[in-house]
Amino acid sequence: MAVNLPAITDLTPIAGVRISTHCAQIKQTERDDVALFELAEGTNCAAVFTRNAFCAAPVTVSKRHIEQASPRYLLVNSGNANAGTGAKGFETVQGCCDEIARLTGSQATETLVFSTGVIGLALPSEKIYKVMPDLLANLSADAWKDAATAIMTTDTQAKGLSVTGTIDGKTVTVTGTAKGSGMIRPDMATMLAFIATDAAVPQAVLQQCLNEANNLSFNRITVDGDTSTNDSCILAATGQGDAHVDTVDSEAYRSLLELVTQVCQNLAQACIRDGEGASKFISICVEEGATEQECLDVAYTVAHSPLVKTAFYASDANWGRILAAVGRAGIKDLNVDTLRIDLDDVCIVENGGVAASYTEEVGSRVMAQTDICIRIVLARGNANTEIWTCDLSNDYVRINADYRS
Amino acid sequence: MAVNLPAITDLTPIAGVRISTHCAQIKQTERDDVALFELAEGTNCAAVFTRNAFCAAPVTVSKRHIEQASPRYLLVNSGNANAGTGAKGFETVQGCCDEIARLTGSQATETLVFSTGVIGLALPSEKIYKVMPDLLANLSADAWKDAATAIMTTDTQAKGLSVTGTIDGKTVTVTGTAKGSGMIRPDMATMLAFIATDAAVPQAVLQQCLNEANNLSFNRITVDGDTSTNDSCILAATGQGDAHVDTVDSEAYRSLLELVTQVCQNLAQACIRDGEGASKFISICVEEGATEQECLDVAYTVAHSPLVKTAFYASDANWGRILAAVGRAGIKDLNVDTLRIDLDDVCIVENGGVAASYTEEVGSRVMAQTDICIRIVLARGNANTEIWTCDLSNDYVRINADYRS
Repeated sequence: MAVNLPAITDLTPIAGVRISTHCAQIKQTERDDVALFELAEGTNCAAVFTRNAFCAAPVTVSKRHIEQASPRYLLVNSGNANAGTGAKGFETVQGCCDEIARLTGSQATETLVFSTGVIGLALPSEKIYKVMPDLLANLSADAWKDAATAIMTTDTQAKGLSVTGTIDGKTVTVTGTAKGSGMIRPDMATMLAFIATDAAVPQAVLQQCLNEANNLSFNRITVDGDTSTNDSCILAATGQGDAHVDTVDSEAYRSLLELVTQVCQNLAQACIRDGEGASKFISICVEEGATEQECLDVAYTVAHSPLVKTAFYASDANWGRILAAVGRAGIKDLNVDTLRIDLDDVCIVENGGVAASYTEEVGSRVMAQTDICIRIVLARGNANTEIWTCDLSNDYVRINADYRS
Repeated sequence: MAVNLPAITDLTPIAGVRISTHCAQIKQTERDDVALFELAEGTNCAAVFTRNAFCAAPVTVSKRHIEQASPRYLLVNSGNANAGTGAKGFETVQGCCDEIARLTGSQATETLVFSTGVIGLALPSEKIYKVMPDLLANLSADAWKDAATAIMTTDTQAKGLSVTGTIDGKTVTVTGTAKGSGMIRPDMATMLAFIATDAAVPQAVLQQCLNEANNLSFNRITVDGDTSTNDSCILAATGQGDAHVDTVDSEAYRSLLELVTQVCQNLAQACIRDGEGASKFISICVEEGATEQECLDVAYTVAHSPLVKTAFYASDANWGRILAAVGRAGIKDLNVDTLRIDLDDVCIVENGGVAASYTEEVGSRVMAQTDICIRIVLARGNANTEIWTCDLSNDYVRINADYRS
C-alpha cells in the first residue's frame, strides 16, 4: 500500500517514441512483463547506471552499446534481473540484441537491454525471443502506461509523469516512467527509469542535464540502503518537437533541466511512496552543515537507522533515536549543544536535549501524519541537502522474506 | 528468543569485587534494575566508551572521573539511558556520585555511573538515592548473576562468563557480564559490559589489554548498525589473586589477553545471539582482502544489508543479495570475476556467478541452520576479518515499534 501516491494519470506521447508490451511469462503469467521502446532515427540518448561493482550483464552491455551507437531500441523485462549470471547472462543479452537487429535491420549495438527482478537466476531468453515479433508489430505512441506497468516488480502501483513547458517560447513535453521499490539506494539512478522529450538536444548537453536532474532526484532517495545491481536511467531526446537546446550555458537548457528534474523528482519520490512495506513518506532536510557531504552523511545515517525507521512505523516520536543516529554519522567536532531537530512544525530537540516547548502530545500529533519532514539544523555552516526515505515496517520484512518464494 | 544462547552458568566471584542489586522501579517494578559494584582499594580499571557524539551524561561524567581517580564504585541502572537529557542529566549523575561519596566516605570522582534504556526521559534520581543504603548494606562477592540480570533491557537472557587460566603458573580468574541487545553496533564497546580479574595489572597495561580484546569482540558485532549513546566497557583488575602482569611485552600479558578476549568474545557473541528479534547467528568472514579495513567494509555492508538480513530470516539462500551488498561496499577495482562466497561448507558463488556445484537443495540445507558462516574470499591480498551479526525479523520491527509503549 503506497503512501499518498496518486494513481498514474495519462502519459503524453512523445513524438518519435513508440512502445509495446507483452506477457512473456518470465516469472508470472498474469501481466505484461516485457516492454520495447523504439526511438526514431536522430534521437539522442543520455544514460546513468548503477555503480555497484556487481552490475548485471544487461548494464555492462548497455554501457558499451551506448558508447558505440545511438540507441534505437530499449528492451526491458521484469521478473528476472539477469544479474550474477556469469557468461550465460551476457550471451542472453547479446542474443536479445542480435534478435532485434535481425528483425529490424538495425545494428545489435543500437539496442540497450534492461532487466529487473530476482538476482542469480538465468533469464529465459527463448521466452523473450518468442514475443519479439509481436512486440515489434504492435508499437504505439500511446503505450507509456502499459510500459510503466510492465516494468514493475514488487511495486504496487505504476509510476509515470508527463510535464509540458516552453523553451524559448516553443512547447516541449517530458514523459517518464520508473519502477522501485526495494534494494533502493540508487547510486546513479533508480532501478529503472525511462524518460523522453521531444526537444532537440545534443548528446553531451542531454547527458549533463540527466546528471544534474539525477543528482537531485534518484540520487537522493533510499528505502533500505541497498544499491541495486541493475539501476539504469535513460533520457532520450527525439528532436521531433519544435524546441531545441543547443548548449548547457543557456536559458533553454535551464528550462529543460527544470522540466526533467521535475519528472525525475516525481518518479524518485514515487519509488519511496511505493517503497516495500512503506507506511510513511519521510523527507530529511539537513541544514547549516559545513559541507554538502556532511549534510548527506547525517541525512543517510538517519535514513538508514533501523531504529529511527521502526519508530516512524510505530508513529512514536522517539527523538532520542534520531539524536543517536546524528551522533554516529561521523561528523568531526559536532557541537551537540547547538543542534536543533524539528518534526514538521514541532521543535523536538534544541541545545542537545529535548526542546523546552516539546510535549508528547504534540509529538504524537505530528507522528500520526503519513508525510513527515525531519529537519536537522547542524548550525555550523551554509550547506543544505534534502533526501527522501520511508519507514521500516513488518511488511518490509514480510515482502523480502517471502520474495522468490 | 535467543539463538543457541545457553542459559547463564554460575559466575566465579573475583576477590576484591562485591556486588549488590535492587529494584528501584525505574521503568518496571518486577525485577532488580540497579546494580552496584564495589572495587577493593588498589584495584586498577580500564575503560572504553561509545564514540557517538551524543554520548549520554553518565558516559561524559564517567570518562572524566576515571581520568581523575581510580574507581571504587560502579553504579548501573537499566530502564533509562539518561541520554539527551541536557543539564538535568548531568545533575542526576553528579547527584548519584555525591550520594555514594556521602554514604561511604569516598570521593565523588571514585564513582562511575552507567545507564541503559530509553533515551530522552529524565532519570528519576530520587528512586536511586532511596535504594542506595540498601545497595551498600548488601554487597556480596557472589552476586554477578544478579548484576547480569539487573542490567538487562530488551535482553531475553542474562549474559556472563567466567574463565580460569594461569599466568606464570599462578591461577587467574576473569569474570564478566554484558547486556545488549538493540542499537548494537558498538564503536568502542557494547552497550554495557563489566569485567573483572583478580590479577594484578598496572592501569596502562590493563587499558591496552582491554583495547585489544575489545577490538576483537565488541567492536566486531552489529545487530542494526545503530551505535548506542551509552556504550561502556569496564575491565577491573583487583590484584587480590596471585597472578600479576607487569608489562605489555610479556608472556604473562599474552595469557591475560587471551582470557580477557575469550570473555569479551563470548559476551559480544551472546549480545548477537540475543539480538532483538534474532533467529539466526551469522558469522561473516572476509578473507584475502588488500587491507583489514576493506575486509571490514565488506563485512559490515553485508551485515547491515536489510535484504541480506531478511533473506537469512526467511532461510532463503538468496546469494544474489550478498553479491549485491559486496558490490556496493565501495571497494576500489574489485574484480568480481575472482570472488568466491561460501555458506558454511557450500560454495555458492565463484567467478562472479553462481557456483557450478551449487543447487537450491544444498543452499536450502545450509540456510535451515541457526548458526551460519558467510565466507567471502576477495582474492586480492592477505588481510582477513570476522564479525558477527543476526538476521532481521518481524520481531525486530515489532520490538522496536513497541518499545516505549
